[in-house]
Amino acid sequence: MAKALPRSPLAQPLPRLLPVAGVRLGAVAAQIRYKDRTDLMMMEFVPGTTAAGVFTRSKCPGAPIDWSRAALAQGKARALVVNSGNANVFTGRAGVIATQISAAAAARVVHCPATEVFLASTGVIGEPLDAERISDAMPQLYEALSPEGWEDAARAIMTTDTFPKAATRQVEIGGKTVTLQGIAKGSGMIAPDMATMLGFVVTDAAISHDVLQSLLREGTERSFNAITVDSDTSTSDMVLVFATAQAGHDEITSLTDPALAAFREALDSLLLELALMVVRDGEGATKMFTVRVSGAVSDESAKKIALAVGNSPLVKTAIAGEDANWGRVVMAVGKSGEPANRDTLSVAIGNVWIARQGTVVEGYDETPVVAHMKGQDIDIQIDLGLANGHAQIWSCDLTHGYIDINGSYRS
Amino acid sequence: MAKALPRSPLAQPLPRLLPVAGVRLGAVAAQIRYKDRTDLMMMEFVPGTTAAGVFTRSKCPGAPIDWSRAALAQGKARALVVNSGNANVFTGRAGVIATQISAAAAARVVHCPATEVFLASTGVIGEPLDAERISDAMPQLYEALSPEGWEDAARAIMTTDTFPKAATRQVEIGGKTVTLQGIAKGSGMIAPDMATMLGFVVTDAAISHDVLQSLLREGTERSFNAITVDSDTSTSDMVLVFATAQAGHDEITSLTDPALAAFREALDSLLLELALMVVRDGEGATKMFTVRVSGAVSDESAKKIALAVGNSPLVKTAIAGEDANWGRVVMAVGKSGEPANRDTLSVAIGNVWIARQGTVVEGYDETPVVAHMKGQDIDIQIDLGLANGHAQIWSCDLTHGYIDINGSYRS
Repeated sequence: MAKALPRSPLAQPLPRLLPVAGVRLGAVAAQIRYKDRTDLMMMEFVPGTTAAGVFTRSKCPGAPIDWSRAALAQGKARALVVNSGNANVFTGRAGVIATQISAAAAARVVHCPATEVFLASTGVIGEPLDAERISDAMPQLYEALSPEGWEDAARAIMTTDTFPKAATRQVEIGGKTVTLQGIAKGSGMIAPDMATMLGFVVTDAAISHDVLQSLLREGTERSFNAITVDSDTSTSDMVLVFATAQAGHDEITSLTDPALAAFREALDSLLLELALMVVRDGEGATKMFTVRVSGAVSDESAKKIALAVGNSPLVKTAIAGEDANWGRVVMAVGKSGEPANRDTLSVAIGNVWIARQGTVVEGYDETPVVAHMKGQDIDIQIDLGLANGHAQIWSCDLTHGYIDINGSYRS
Repeated sequence: MAKALPRSPLAQPLPRLLPVAGVRLGAVAAQIRYKDRTDLMMMEFVPGTTAAGVFTRSKCPGAPIDWSRAALAQGKARALVVNSGNANVFTGRAGVIATQISAAAAARVVHCPATEVFLASTGVIGEPLDAERISDAMPQLYEALSPEGWEDAARAIMTTDTFPKAATRQVEIGGKTVTLQGIAKGSGMIAPDMATMLGFVVTDAAISHDVLQSLLREGTERSFNAITVDSDTSTSDMVLVFATAQAGHDEITSLTDPALAAFREALDSLLLELALMVVRDGEGATKMFTVRVSGAVSDESAKKIALAVGNSPLVKTAIAGEDANWGRVVMAVGKSGEPANRDTLSVAIGNVWIARQGTVVEGYDETPVVAHMKGQDIDIQIDLGLANGHAQIWSCDLTHGYIDINGSYRS
């Protein structure tokens, strides 16, 4: 985390970020783990802000996950505090107290109940988090908050990330312009078991907690829950959405409200853009690949098969080696445990069908596939030929860089 | 496969191998994929030999898996033919015909029904297997069979293996000395979803097909089904046991026969020894590790948790890096999806309890753990503190060597 890793070859530049009415944000160096590294980020929301969240499914989550899950129950938010030095995981009773101290410190400066403060942490596991550093830094951090603080915030939540991640959208609701803007971090332990990284989205739309929660849950399924780097799932991670209701339109309180259509689409594409940035920053990644599965017995089955392929070390190393090794794709389909029939299975790479109905396509010419494998974005298609279930996931290759990053002493 | 890989630092020498009454074996170069590489192995068994087998659970198995599964139905064996150049997987109707041609060629020289010939293949996927090469080589191969052919056989089935694998045992049944001897191959795609490599064991004991099948199934659960290299499962692999009934004792036809006790123990330990050799030859492996889980809600749950830890890329890279990163162990327990409670969880490395009941042990001294991590055999213990379920699995570290082997063009 302290090491300066080379920037991912798949990195993307930050887009131009806009203020979002109703939120002020910023970051400071609170010396949580490393000296003089910006490691504490805060957002303050206007009263009336609604919240939605999805959390890691880990059975051993960190104390901040428990805290934010509880905060979400009442659906309102006044502040978010994120530290990127210590995950506050497996820290027992001391970890619970650390969350209380952190939330209380934010509540004091914002003048709100501590239960309206959301917390997130990422970093080392099993070491006590000294929450006094968060309390001590809080007044200075609060002074630093500004509607323009987005880039600082995006940088402050990075750990092994090699580039800051943010995305932005504007749509209309009831004749009013609404902004959605989000930041994310993550580069390893990115596995689809929600939520395996940190993502924070703020919008000035007015949307009730229930509706926002449904939108986030659906959008996550096809974005943050459809990416994988190494199949490992973090104990700490979450995606939160806050709606400040400052855009001036009538509050949306029903999922079937037609005024919601454009917003839903914008949120979905924003979540996907952020999620794909996480894959682009996959530890050691030099190529991205997508796996599209069709013809499965159900969408759920298709997703499991797609993830079996996306997580297979043999597929991931083949992609790193620019090897159109479709045999490994067949192997991964077979090991998924999902219904598949070798004699109806078809595989394409770069839109060239290599195998159809369980056997190599006659006269298959590898030339265009070899060319496709040399690119940065690899496309694998699998048709199971059984029914209509389909899914798409994104992953990255497995390279020496991954070993370098994770095989050295205590990251 | 053709590349000469450096011998695994965890390799073990071949033990002294004995003839086993009732089997003759040998190998030749049949030019199946590589020129002048010994790639075709055969065993001939005396009439009356019983067989048992476990097979890959892949949904896309190769044609030889289908063939041998069918052969097993009648429980008798006269021959085994194994090629190590072409897996004959995803080869459609041509693949089925190739198995028929191969079995018929062996049946011809042995003078037995083709249904008593077992087949196994390992190698490239999706390329047609030219079975004529197997037929053509058969007479010469049959001439080469001998009771002394064990080492040749062990070498002929190797693919990316860096050392030949064999193990041997002797026990008494009814006052007669009985020999059990086996060979194995495997170094990648070794995941516990049975059977993810090739293992062939021959004994001169007299044991009925049903009893042999039960013994193999049980023994596999704690050996070949308790190892993992990269979580990938092959389309081709199997473990077969043949009993030639030449030792001279009365045939054992009941699992509860007391005369079976020593044999069962010997078979279990033989299977485990072979399975651990496969882990020792894990692609790129420099260290082995075992994960022992106790206190789980069931043995099955314990095994799933142990495998989640054993398969985690972050745990595997930490072991490669000699990093006693128990936080990654906690992460992997959490992601397994099995019942776990962070506040009753304990973790030990090298028999030193680092964390107990959800928090770091007070005064934890890393020194002996750091020393343990520098060794070649790493021991991880996890106590869930919930109930009495327990399990043990074996895995190896994830290193640059794995990437080198699998990330280069078409292995």
